[in-house]
Amino acid sequence: MLNQNVYLPGLHVLGTIHSNQSVLLSDYTHFKEWLIKQISDHELSALGDFYHSFEGGGYTGMICLTESHIAFHTWPEYNLLTIDIFLSNYQKENDHKARSLFDACVAYFSATAFDKKEVKR
Amino acid sequence: MLNQNVYLPGLHVLGTIHSNQSVLLSDYTHFKEWLIKQISDHELSALGDFYHSFEGGGYTGMICLTESHIAFHTWPEYNLLTIDIFLSNYQKENDHKARSLFDACVAYFSATAFDKKEVKR
Repeated sequence: MLNQNVYLPGLHVLGTIHSNQSVLLSDYTHFKEWLIKQISDHELSALGDFYHSFEGGGYTGMICLTESHIAFHTWPEYNLLTIDIFLSNYQKENDHKARSLFDACVAYFSATAFDKKEVKR
Repeated sequence: MLNQNVYLPGLHVLGTIHSNQSVLLSDYTHFKEWLIKQISDHELSALGDFYHSFEGGGYTGMICLTESHIAFHTWPEYNLLTIDIFLSNYQKENDHKARSLFDACVAYFSATAFDKKEVKR
């Protein structure tokens, strides 16, 4: 039961993933397709998105969800990406989905190392 | 001087702002216009954005920047919004801009209280 006086919208997972998958870090085409399926598989609802490729570099993108947002930025020159998954619990508890989606990203990019921070907010 | 071995893209400010400004929390029109000017004043570069209004509720939105992203979600029923400002330091140090932009948001919404977390990532 949510207490309106101390309402915490949800869980924000802040991830940094190290990966040697330079193609996946440089071209968002496949990631975008994969992410749409993940959002559907996690029963989340996308409202809109935006992607941008940096010439000769990585890409940046975001997806607005009914449940809040996902954002990602890649730096192929550093074998690195950051990902944010913030899912609010307005109508149902989504914390496990935020963690599951992050784990899926770690596997997708064949992470050589990763850092994960969780912020309840 | 950035060390490629421990490259930290930048500073992520995660804010929660309590506000009684129900109009500003329910209708993004004025906030969007204000934010465009703030981005310009802070010498940041917007690549694209997305906004969505929830019927009878708040709004959600994101702006992709060359320097990473800004995301916000409002819950007028809780007098609450969250804001994320993640600015990378790829070409220049932007930490002070992330903090300044957050302070501007606190003032803009006439915050009655706020919580601010900083994550170097």
